[in-house]
Amino acid sequence: MALLFVSTPARLPVWQQMFDAAGLRMIAGEAAVTDPAEVTAIACWIPPADLTRYPNLRVVLSVGAGVDHLPPLPEGVALVRTLAPGIEAMVRDWVVMATLMLHRDMPTYLQQARAGLWQSQPVRLASSRRVGIMGMGRIGGLVATSLSALGFEVAGLSRSGRDGAVPVYPTARLDDFLARTDLLVCLLPLTAETRGILGRQAFAALPRGAGLVHAGRGAHLDPAALRDALDEGQLSGAMLDVTDPEPLPPDHWMWRHPRLVITPHVAAQTDAAEGAQHAIAVMRALQSGAALPGRVDVALGY
Amino acid sequence: MALLFVSTPARLPVWQQMFDAAGLRMIAGEAAVTDPAEVTAIACWIPPADLTRYPNLRVVLSVGAGVDHLPPLPEGVALVRTLAPGIEAMVRDWVVMATLMLHRDMPTYLQQARAGLWQSQPVRLASSRRVGIMGMGRIGGLVATSLSALGFEVAGLSRSGRDGAVPVYPTARLDDFLARTDLLVCLLPLTAETRGILGRQAFAALPRGAGLVHAGRGAHLDPAALRDALDEGQLSGAMLDVTDPEPLPPDHWMWRHPRLVITPHVAAQTDAAEGAQHAIAVMRALQSGAALPGRVDVALGY
Ligand SMILES: NC(=O)c1ccc[n+]([C@@H]2O[C@H](COP(=O)([O-])OP(=O)(O)OC[C@H]3O[C@@H](n4cnc5c(N)ncnc54)[C@H](OP(=O)(O)O)[C@@H]3O)[C@@H](O)[C@H]2O)c1
Ligand SMILES: NC(=O)c1ccc[n+]([C@@H]2O[C@H](COP(=O)([O-])OP(=O)(O)OC[C@H]3O[C@@H](n4cnc5c(N)ncnc54)[C@H](OP(=O)(O)O)[C@@H]3O)[C@@H](O)[C@H]2O)c1
Repeated sequence: MALLFVSTPARLPVWQQMFDAAGLRMIAGEAAVTDPAEVTAIACWIPPADLTRYPNLRVVLSVGAGVDHLPPLPEGVALVRTLAPGIEAMVRDWVVMATLMLHRDMPTYLQQARAGLWQSQPVRLASSRRVGIMGMGRIGGLVATSLSALGFEVAGLSRSGRDGAVPVYPTARLDDFLARTDLLVCLLPLTAETRGILGRQAFAALPRGAGLVHAGRGAHLDPAALRDALDEGQLSGAMLDVTDPEPLPPDHWMWRHPRLVITPHVAAQTDAAEGAQHAIAVMRALQSGAALPGRVDVALGY
Repeated sequence: MALLFVSTPARLPVWQQMFDAAGLRMIAGEAAVTDPAEVTAIACWIPPADLTRYPNLRVVLSVGAGVDHLPPLPEGVALVRTLAPGIEAMVRDWVVMATLMLHRDMPTYLQQARAGLWQSQPVRLASSRRVGIMGMGRIGGLVATSLSALGFEVAGLSRSGRDGAVPVYPTARLDDFLARTDLLVCLLPLTAETRGILGRQAFAALPRGAGLVHAGRGAHLDPAALRDALDEGQLSGAMLDVTDPEPLPPDHWMWRHPRLVITPHVAAQTDAAEGAQHAIAVMRALQSGAALPGRVDVALGY
């Protein structure tokens, strides 16, 4: 029983040390595998091309929160995504920042500053602004709590529509959710159902002048629809941490649009120790037969 | 007994209506004064030049939170600053945004975006960053609560050093306070003691690479010291909502410094109804002889 580590080499020493301390076996890279039958779990961003090499493989562990980039896994191999309170807090911080930046007209002030223009825009109370969070999972829930504490009127959207700290709309009521949303936050997983969800229809359903904060995945967003919505004033501004493709090419129009601010997929960075800790919990669950922490429902895609 | 209103004309109708509803007399502008002896209070940003005209004047009410722009008042005339939960929440929102923007390297990402450069900077947890708030008054206290809730390690500085929701250093321990501060937030009133406090000495006492969030008053800051600290890397970035002079001239170097983001004194805007409500409370206190809400200690300057 061993975990095969094929993720970022820089994280290797931390993982190795923590696996040693936990009395668990870890193999550093495919080249170091002597007995493929030993490998019960693989920690990776992209798994090795040929998984049939590992007859006793039971788990593929994605070291990021998303699993949309992974190919289908062989029958009987479970998919697990990392559970990392640090990642969730980092994304929360970025989303709170980005939401406040749109709430407080930072795209306009940044443009004005380039021209040396001292001119105030109307300031509004957070309590007069309705935030709508698409995806009320681990991260969406944190964001809802923080933005509510600042006074925003927050609601969520999820597949199930289970209420949390704030009212949550089910997918079937997407249009109602959008109609009451001044600042739209996307924290969805990328699945067959959510691909392209940030498109013409969604933007048209928002109140005029709404803002978009996007920290999900690039492929949620239709860039041409975004450009039109910004240029027509249907959207007043957008903050994007994810794009399609990534990296965004240097000459892409998005870099230069005056109502758009892009960060290069940095809402969160994986912390090696946190990742290793979760991997150890997965190994122990495999040993004891307990439920795997962070297990993905492959049919749903998250 | 009447309040003379000499503030922004746009706010006049709301004040008039609320004073009428409260059964209190309000005079709209000096030209409308028929009997100067009637005037017991003046609501203004800048008071009329000749206050001796009003023999029964007892209060000058500043419609903003700061009173540093006001000339000395005649003996026996109290100074009151507006108390407005809305203003305080607005400044809090701006400061939380600005602090997160420095915490998450927005000045760098904004520069990179101009060049179409997709490059990540190390992401840190809020819990690894120490925020220091100079001025733990009505606004500083709100900011401390919000930033603590996001996980930042927050401490304050005040004249008295009275602990609040977070540890508060007294002025005598300014250097200790600065030495433990990665992100410095200024929410001080401008007084003889605080003028120029954001200068070479203070910046040198911060850990290398600290950030500055300034929403106090322009004259707290020595611009030449800021430029040197930014250029030498002693400060890694700054967010300024206040400058000296205001408006900042279009060709001022601050607009164009790559590590500086300026907003045109928009952390808060006075809400007419909120201002009128406070003014009514002041008038009632004058009638009943109760303590004046928002009274300024003229000797201290705040
Ligand atoms: N930018 C970054 O650096 C970064 C970092 C980490 C994560 N992310 C993104 O954030 C996403 C969310 O992460 P998480 O850990 O919070 O995920 P999670 O805990 O799995 O939550 C996913 C949420 O999305 C909802 N959902 C799924 N499909 C939906 C649909 N078709 N319509 C409406 N709601 C739907 C789910 O609804 P139910 O509650 O009904 O199941 C759930 O509330 C990740 O998948 C990734 O795309 C980005
Ligand atoms: N940018 C904007 O749009 C905007 C809007 C509103 C306000 N402001 C600024 O924010 C300031 C604070 O407003 P506020 O309502 O929070 O004020 P406040 O309630 O009067 O609080 C002032 C705080 O500063 C402390 N202080 C005074 N002198 C000091 C000194 N020499 N050293 C250290 N601490 C000192 C006081 O200490 P004690 O607790 O010991 O008395 C108190 O904690 C205003 O004066 C104004 O400059 C800016």
